[in-house]
Amino acid sequence: MTKIAILGATGYTALELMKLLLRHPNAEIVALTSRENTQPVDLVHPSLTGQLSLNLENLAAEEVARRADCVFSCLPHTATATVAPTLLAGDAKVIDFGADYRLHSAAVFQKWYGVEHPDAGQLGKVPYGLPELFRQEIRGASLVANPGCYSTSAILPLSPLVKLGLIEPTDIIIDSKSGISGAGRKPSLKNLYPECNESISAYGVGTHRHVPEIEQVVETISGQSIQIIFAPHLTPMDRGILTTAYSRMKKNGLTQENVLDALRSFYQDEPFIKIVETLPSTKDVTHSNRCHITARVVGDRVLTISVIDNLIKGASGAAVQNFNILYDYPETTALI
Amino acid sequence: MTKIAILGATGYTALELMKLLLRHPNAEIVALTSRENTQPVDLVHPSLTGQLSLNLENLAAEEVARRADCVFSCLPHTATATVAPTLLAGDAKVIDFGADYRLHSAAVFQKWYGVEHPDAGQLGKVPYGLPELFRQEIRGASLVANPGCYSTSAILPLSPLVKLGLIEPTDIIIDSKSGISGAGRKPSLKNLYPECNESISAYGVGTHRHVPEIEQVVETISGQSIQIIFAPHLTPMDRGILTTAYSRMKKNGLTQENVLDALRSFYQDEPFIKIVETLPSTKDVTHSNRCHITARVVGDRVLTISVIDNLIKGASGAAVQNFNILYDYPETTALI
Amino acid sequence: MTKIAILGATGYTALELMKLLLRHPNAEIVALTSRENTQPVDLVHPSLTGQLSLNLENLAAEEVARRADCVFSCLPHTATATVAPTLLAGDAKVIDFGADYRLHSAAVFQKWYGVEHPDAGQLGKVPYGLPELFRQEIRGASLVANPGCYSTSAILPLSPLVKLGLIEPTDIIIDSKSGISGAGRKPSLKNLYPECNESISAYGVGTHRHVPEIEQVVETISGQSIQIIFAPHLTPMDRGILTTAYSRMKKNGLTQENVLDALRSFYQDEPFIKIVETLPSTKDVTHSNRCHITARVVGDRVLTISVIDNLIKGASGAAVQNFNILYDYPETTALI
Amino acid sequence: MTKIAILGATGYTALELMKLLLRHPNAEIVALTSRENTQPVDLVHPSLTGQLSLNLENLAAEEVARRADCVFSCLPHTATATVAPTLLAGDAKVIDFGADYRLHSAAVFQKWYGVEHPDAGQLGKVPYGLPELFRQEIRGASLVANPGCYSTSAILPLSPLVKLGLIEPTDIIIDSKSGISGAGRKPSLKNLYPECNESISAYGVGTHRHVPEIEQVVETISGQSIQIIFAPHLTPMDRGILTTAYSRMKKNGLTQENVLDALRSFYQDEPFIKIVETLPSTKDVTHSNRCHITARVVGDRVLTISVIDNLIKGASGAAVQNFNILYDYPETTALI
Repeated sequence: MTKIAILGATGYTALELMKLLLRHPNAEIVALTSRENTQPVDLVHPSLTGQLSLNLENLAAEEVARRADCVFSCLPHTATATVAPTLLAGDAKVIDFGADYRLHSAAVFQKWYGVEHPDAGQLGKVPYGLPELFRQEIRGASLVANPGCYSTSAILPLSPLVKLGLIEPTDIIIDSKSGISGAGRKPSLKNLYPECNESISAYGVGTHRHVPEIEQVVETISGQSIQIIFAPHLTPMDRGILTTAYSRMKKNGLTQENVLDALRSFYQDEPFIKIVETLPSTKDVTHSNRCHITARVVGDRVLTISVIDNLIKGASGAAVQNFNILYDYPETTALI
Repeated sequence: MTKIAILGATGYTALELMKLLLRHPNAEIVALTSRENTQPVDLVHPSLTGQLSLNLENLAAEEVARRADCVFSCLPHTATATVAPTLLAGDAKVIDFGADYRLHSAAVFQKWYGVEHPDAGQLGKVPYGLPELFRQEIRGASLVANPGCYSTSAILPLSPLVKLGLIEPTDIIIDSKSGISGAGRKPSLKNLYPECNESISAYGVGTHRHVPEIEQVVETISGQSIQIIFAPHLTPMDRGILTTAYSRMKKNGLTQENVLDALRSFYQDEPFIKIVETLPSTKDVTHSNRCHITARVVGDRVLTISVIDNLIKGASGAAVQNFNILYDYPETTALI
Repeated sequence: MTKIAILGATGYTALELMKLLLRHPNAEIVALTSRENTQPVDLVHPSLTGQLSLNLENLAAEEVARRADCVFSCLPHTATATVAPTLLAGDAKVIDFGADYRLHSAAVFQKWYGVEHPDAGQLGKVPYGLPELFRQEIRGASLVANPGCYSTSAILPLSPLVKLGLIEPTDIIIDSKSGISGAGRKPSLKNLYPECNESISAYGVGTHRHVPEIEQVVETISGQSIQIIFAPHLTPMDRGILTTAYSRMKKNGLTQENVLDALRSFYQDEPFIKIVETLPSTKDVTHSNRCHITARVVGDRVLTISVIDNLIKGASGAAVQNFNILYDYPETTALI
Repeated sequence: MTKIAILGATGYTALELMKLLLRHPNAEIVALTSRENTQPVDLVHPSLTGQLSLNLENLAAEEVARRADCVFSCLPHTATATVAPTLLAGDAKVIDFGADYRLHSAAVFQKWYGVEHPDAGQLGKVPYGLPELFRQEIRGASLVANPGCYSTSAILPLSPLVKLGLIEPTDIIIDSKSGISGAGRKPSLKNLYPECNESISAYGVGTHRHVPEIEQVVETISGQSIQIIFAPHLTPMDRGILTTAYSRMKKNGLTQENVLDALRSFYQDEPFIKIVETLPSTKDVTHSNRCHITARVVGDRVLTISVIDNLIKGASGAAVQNFNILYDYPETTALI
């Protein structure tokens, strides 16, 4: 039984994580932290009523490491990097939901996040927690950088196509549509029900922090220099991301079947990646750890359409998948 | 042209009010107040882009009275009662969206609102702004207490039936379902999109402040002592209230047609009240000032089902209707 | 490993059932039937992609019984009662999602369903599949009548209170609010997105077929004659039922804490029934087999508010719970 | 007073049209047709209760022309072209909501719509009813081709930029997100509430019929050959279209302010086109005839983001705008 602590347990990704771990035969949740809230967790998350009898606690990192074997951190950026060294020193493994260890360059981190990185020495040494692409690196690690939700939805369809030389690496447009849970659980005018409901809007056009992450990972996988345009959109639904990516074919004559075959072959052994022929809906994958991908060819353009649940494959499901790899449990445990 | 000021112009009812008044041939909006926000109004309400070029201002009541003939107050409770004497002294008429002047008793106000009434001397002298029941009192008034949204949805079907002796006045259960805009535009965890969406919940069961208001008005209309049980529910939609009221027939043998006929006859000259035979949906009336009402008889129970738009007939539309009466404009101006 | 067939596998309850059974270590789905559709099941339900490789088939009851140990029937009313004798003769056990075996009287069935019962001889002999109330009867049965969704949401809070003599059995008003999935997956104007969305409406007021079912079950449990008024409402959300029941206390002085204690004590050993103090939301229980119940006392009225997922505790989860009992698997298998 | 007939009055665009015309001081609705439905219109559209007392009728074109001065046709494609000659011969003016007279080439029509055009002789002679671009052609016409909803959302931002030489005409990607009302009111599995709700999906990628329409109109306006990639998406909301268009700048160094200025200048006198600086939401324009447009420059890409209400500016509002032009009423009548 692996003992689990969750840092920052009041939000939506922490809730999904707890639900998944409650189904995991080898995981026992032993500590939940919050800086402001010390209520029983089922008052904060009523859907855990009768499922988990723990209070939120404001715990020091040392104490967390003492209690837990594995720490999932749902803290805001830089907060994990501040406590991770202590946790690792205390022999805990750490899976970070945030962006602290995703980027390899401290300068790039500072440019996009506007603050100095608190643990810059580790950058570039931490595996990016997308098992479909970095399973070997994750195995044996003690710290994993769980991917961003948009990043996962874009990297999964694009990486193989760039790597296999099917599409131009510098002419990629990514138009993503996400449910509102992606914006977190902190009250703000922008996320009020009557503001979001019955409305769709773009935000962070060209400035969203997942841009350098997507570019870095696709570059790593393909060995090519990548340039993307990324426009995320807030969609009136709780959860789900649909990413429509528009790229240009590298050789004339590529067909839809060619692209689908390339994707099928690349992901043939992956339990959570499904290449489909019909155009997917986010509802096909919400509440699951799957990513459904299809492709279309229109003129000389290759379109990929991919769907994930932003809270599962885009966050907590991926984290559990990483956990399973770290601890050598069957990778699909608690995820199917 | 009547000059209009709106106090507390950042919220949803104020927005609806502005949209209605922009269509009113005899109204000119000249001032919008906010204590915290001094932006152009179309930055606060983007749907007013190009429709209204005014900045929000933090104005003293004297200045408001100087600029405007008629003041619509969307301020929180007790705030209107604090400024109303000054506004009236400055020769402005006042239509209060809040609860300050609805109840006739300072003690009842204090019991339900938990604070002393700042202008208790006026209680009982201010007409309740439901024109279908108090048109004569409203005409000629200088201060009007616009009704609560739930109150309107319940009072309209119940008042005639109690008054006509068709139902027992002390065995009335009111189960209301409201869209989320009724909770206002102030950020709170409770009103976040992912909290409200795909979920319905009860709140304020037995303790909602519209209870004494409904009881007082139905008592006034019927001359009988009223007792209600009221349970409001938060429904995942922007706007609309559906109220299902369960009462007991007073004489045996009452039929559905009897009840519908009584309602039809009572409201026959009312432009905004429609007695319908099929079960109504809130969508039948959203974005309108209408109230649709039907009735059913099951055993010895009389059920009424009524729908309004909480922001229009439940707030801003009623306010414009009152405005039209106060200034002798045709009552349906800007409302059809 | 118990072999499972599902009759009428194209709808929403069948989909939820398959998702639950795919997690069940002792269940293997071996046949899915449809009269009109012979596609692979994951084309009909894309969320099963890669999870279940079966085609829908138009199978005779004999063949179903040959292949399966246990048959879940999601067929429309009377259809199950037409094939059940054959299935049982073929040594299959049957769990009926429909109403065919819920009522004990053929006359009552005919009155509410408008058709003669095809297997009237069995009525009254089939256990009502609400394990919290009829666990002993279910154990050892070969045919189980899975409860209606509204029925479950109303029977669970009301039965103990009537049985314990806390509330009057003939003055009960049940106001239920259900998500749209309850209306099934057959295209109709009424269930189109733009008709239902952003709107709430009542339907079947006083005429809904769950009325005799609720009355019969509460009568059976309490030994008292029951009379209810039932008004269901269509709520703009996929799933979930919230039922607000208004009854009258039988003895003066009953408190909220008395009612909550009675409920807690009655359901103390039940893994899926949680008595809560705060007012519940349907979101607290969607995607789970739980029912959360609370109570309020207002004047001499006792209100209970209960929430379930209409597709899980109101249908497929209850069916799996019954399956677990029938086959002596731990009752919570695949449900937590 | 201009007498109005509406053909195919049971759908959503017809409903919005009626609501707008009921506010129009110079329009009187005199006939509503349906082939299958002869009910009072307020039974088909309950939101018209008490607003319009007309029955739907199955009328021959001759009779329609006899009764009405102006005919709005909401019929499916080819149906309008079948009756238009008769209507015009009867001295009625015709505004077609459908695609029959939008394209200039019978061959292109046949390619995209799969049927021969019934009135091919008229193609190329009928003005495209987007007043911002074709006001002069519309004035004086007797037949107008009201634009497609997606087309309007894409043509308005793109036409000026192509015409002014700011963007490459053959590298344009249009990613549109539409509310479900765009799919019409005919029951189908695809449009059921539980299928659409809480889900976003792409459809008609590369094959949607608005492609040739957008290309033709932008070509007409700019005199350049246009090539677009178009991917529409079904978004879980009633109404609204947000179109994100990605194009490549023609000259280096173009800034966001350059693009916004070009758009502001192009549309400076247009009452319904608003160039905004912040990223718009569809909610900013729903229930209005406005189009809000903004632009962003990311690298060498120019992005435009535009929002309309698909039922108003994308259909019925545009039709009323055309009506006002045809009959020389102030163009904003009934639209503000």
